[in-house]
Amino acid sequence: MGEPTYPQTAANKINRYKHQATYNVDTIHTIVNSTPVLHVSFVPDPAVPAPIVLPMIGQMGLFPGDESRGEDDWKCYLHGYVSSRLMNLADAAIKRGEEGLHLCVAATKVDGFVLTLTPNSHNYNYRSAVLQGFGTIVEDVEEKIWAMELITNSVIPDRYANTRVPPDAAEMHSTRILKLKITSASGKVREGVPEDERKDMKREDVLDSVWTGVLPVYEKMGEPQPGPYNRVTKIPEHVTKFVKEQNEAREKYAFEAAHKPAPVKRVKRSD
Amino acid sequence: MGEPTYPQTAANKINRYKHQATYNVDTIHTIVNSTPVLHVSFVPDPAVPAPIVLPMIGQMGLFPGDESRGEDDWKCYLHGYVSSRLMNLADAAIKRGEEGLHLCVAATKVDGFVLTLTPNSHNYNYRSAVLQGFGTIVEDVEEKIWAMELITNSVIPDRYANTRVPPDAAEMHSTRILKLKITSASGKVREGVPEDERKDMKREDVLDSVWTGVLPVYEKMGEPQPGPYNRVTKIPEHVTKFVKEQNEAREKYAFEAAHKPAPVKRVKRSD
Repeated sequence: MGEPTYPQTAANKINRYKHQATYNVDTIHTIVNSTPVLHVSFVPDPAVPAPIVLPMIGQMGLFPGDESRGEDDWKCYLHGYVSSRLMNLADAAIKRGEEGLHLCVAATKVDGFVLTLTPNSHNYNYRSAVLQGFGTIVEDVEEKIWAMELITNSVIPDRYANTRVPPDAAEMHSTRILKLKITSASGKVREGVPEDERKDMKREDVLDSVWTGVLPVYEKMGEPQPGPYNRVTKIPEHVTKFVKEQNEAREKYAFEAAHKPAPVKRVKRSD
Repeated sequence: MGEPTYPQTAANKINRYKHQATYNVDTIHTIVNSTPVLHVSFVPDPAVPAPIVLPMIGQMGLFPGDESRGEDDWKCYLHGYVSSRLMNLADAAIKRGEEGLHLCVAATKVDGFVLTLTPNSHNYNYRSAVLQGFGTIVEDVEEKIWAMELITNSVIPDRYANTRVPPDAAEMHSTRILKLKITSASGKVREGVPEDERKDMKREDVLDSVWTGVLPVYEKMGEPQPGPYNRVTKIPEHVTKFVKEQNEAREKYAFEAAHKPAPVKRVKRSD
């Protein structure tokens, strides 16, 4: 038995650069969880095939209440500007007998710019994940508080317990959390050194004149900057530890990705 | 006369945190142009309101051929995995009498994590832009080469001319460029110090115990890593200059954003 994977279906099957595709549940969840902004798409008017995309913060989670009912599929919890329109769309979809509003959530991390001999072979080192499924608004109070803690701590671990909590009635009312039940998911990962086509690798003049290599790219956090009404002179450990660990890990990943072997030769477009 | 703006319509009007909204053409284009991955959404089956999102590389541009015909609206040129399915969808939309395939393009940059007294007031410093409009496949050979150069140089300025060009027939055939004609666009920018609600600013116990401030976040490029078949020992100036300038500018932006005044008090949800 291998690791858990999402099923390959017509909806999520990757046809291009197949060797870079992943359906591994753990890999996909890790990409989603480590991306500070997710891009969430839905169709505002079911009669017009025109989607919109909103940036949101999200995290994978399995609510203990769901788990105790025997559910074992992790959901994606999303926080952002959940408008009344979005709420109404989710309600209307449920009234039509659907499981919720059709949503697509994308997460992408850039790990490097891969510079090759020709523009055509240029690439990024990157990790991306795409989730499709049905979105509903979290109404259960216990699940909502649990999701608020999950999402706050997804930005900085342990932050929730280090702030003024629990949320009061006004905050509970004004906060809306979207919950995505996943029907289909896939990921793509590219890492490694540059890779050129054989026709260019034979060109001595090109090899002698074009620099090839990788510029490692990573998200870096600078020294924490206390705000104007901060009174806590010592920056707390949940912040300093996070900044130090993440900065080291992200830089390390980008540099290591820059030196891995190139992916196996890519297949020609067959779709 | 002010600076050019995109019109405010029902499709792009921002109802939440209005003071952070922008319709300024230059601001929106700059956000798009400086985001290494754009998230592009479309509806694969017009009969089902379920969008998908793909990561792509893109750049704003006005093709001289369009300009000479009197067009003065900048398009968004997109490069990525433009599948046959996507091409067929664009063709079908045109056959139905539409201007192209409905697309939505989102660009988001995170500039900092804003840590406040309560989870509810936590925020990001960020810049985001959303474009809506109609996508078509670029067929004109001259425009396609022009767009390939535009997009390659959007990753690293002057890279195109420093590689093996022009693209050969096989490369021209295998490369597909999407062109978005914009019908609606908007942006949002949040910068500044933390901002809490009055009820928490009165709590001495909370002020005495919760650290508030900003963690500046920026995309950093590490030292260029030559690849295994690189023969050019000196890293070329178009690479070193870009890395140095961008690293300085991005770090500076994130730190400056962390110290700007907070946005004017946010309005209550009214939608």
